[in-house]
Amino acid sequence: MKRPVLCGVGVGPGDPELLTLKAVRVLREADFVFVSASTKNEYSLALRVAAEYIPPERPIEHLPFPMTRDREKLEQAWEENARKVVEKLRVFSKVVFLTMGDPALYSTFGYLARWVRRLYPKVEIRMIPGITAAQAAAARFNLILTEGEEAFVLASGLAAEEVLKKFAGEKTSFALYKVYRRAPEIIEILRQTERLKDARAISWCGFPEEIIYEDATKISGSTPPYFTLLLVGGKALD
Amino acid sequence: MKRPVLCGVGVGPGDPELLTLKAVRVLREADFVFVSASTKNEYSLALRVAAEYIPPERPIEHLPFPMTRDREKLEQAWEENARKVVEKLRVFSKVVFLTMGDPALYSTFGYLARWVRRLYPKVEIRMIPGITAAQAAAARFNLILTEGEEAFVLASGLAAEEVLKKFAGEKTSFALYKVYRRAPEIIEILRQTERLKDARAISWCGFPEEIIYEDATKISGSTPPYFTLLLVGGKALD
Repeated sequence: MKRPVLCGVGVGPGDPELLTLKAVRVLREADFVFVSASTKNEYSLALRVAAEYIPPERPIEHLPFPMTRDREKLEQAWEENARKVVEKLRVFSKVVFLTMGDPALYSTFGYLARWVRRLYPKVEIRMIPGITAAQAAAARFNLILTEGEEAFVLASGLAAEEVLKKFAGEKTSFALYKVYRRAPEIIEILRQTERLKDARAISWCGFPEEIIYEDATKISGSTPPYFTLLLVGGKALD
Repeated sequence: MKRPVLCGVGVGPGDPELLTLKAVRVLREADFVFVSASTKNEYSLALRVAAEYIPPERPIEHLPFPMTRDREKLEQAWEENARKVVEKLRVFSKVVFLTMGDPALYSTFGYLARWVRRLYPKVEIRMIPGITAAQAAAARFNLILTEGEEAFVLASGLAAEEVLKKFAGEKTSFALYKVYRRAPEIIEILRQTERLKDARAISWCGFPEEIIYEDATKISGSTPPYFTLLLVGGKALD
């Protein structure tokens, strides 16, 4: 018997046209689709992005993931959700989990897949890469992120200070995710490391709700939307 | 009159299924297609990846880019190639340039587009993001590159030493491109920074010629193919 497959599918940053052909095929061929959702409601952004590529008869289940940093609560949610996935893997041979962006980069998929593997060792795990919000934002700003011997760093806003200081005085470009609640501190760090003039901010990149901030410091006035990122550095083509 | 558009289209890492739907649409709608090629022959890898999505009647021109680090020769090639692009932009409204991976990350597109802008200021520049080889390699190895507050660094092998040393002792993951002629030195740096055990090497990721090295040090025996990269760190799902 063939091993049942759990496939993490990256649906990209928000624009449904930025799915890959492979992601679209895998969605079409899947037996069962899981999506992550807030515990507060049944809403899934990844499903909103990919919905048009999922055949209408395909069963879809929302897995609630709490927005918390409490490790115990998270582990409990991952285990409970992994149990639901394993239940389907015992029945269906192709189960997918949708994730925004890319499953290898800041996705819930890794946590879920490790728990599934633990509970059901014979599962085969696959990943379908997706365009990241950083790449979409670079395209939106006509910005070359890295050339020649330069580096590009994808970092969490929660660790922005350490990462930016390592590259102080260099041309390295950055994408900072999760700037959310720490926006004022991050703007201040950018000011201190003299990178504020190179910073561009965008919320909901690629979604109809997209906001481009003419001045990156504008994100520090109030808490920006969850899907807000900063690009620092790079060379604009305009 | 509408501004003529030069669009840099990322065709992804090598697997034709990893183009985005948007890239496929833009190729279908383009009036003229440019591809980069070696000066030694007319061969273009990006064209090989995307060929099936380009309508057969569409004109395609190869732009020779020398594989050199001689700045003067490079500037001359960019200018000459930009002149050819401008010639087409005077006639056609949608001109595309194909690039492997993503146009914002280590692509020839930035150099070309800046020269085109200089010679023909009214051009509108657009970029279509593409899956990078690093993302495809992570998917190939079932590897989560970054979670939580960790960072991910995309760096050139030519600057591997400085970048790896900045993150010594940390969990940060890396993709090192352009390991090519410096493979033995890079393996030695990974050994010194105690990251060799976390390193995975792959050549031609996603192409039929793909080579996965069971042991990353194998790339240091002889010069590996140009499209060789190292992933360092991350968490395997297997």
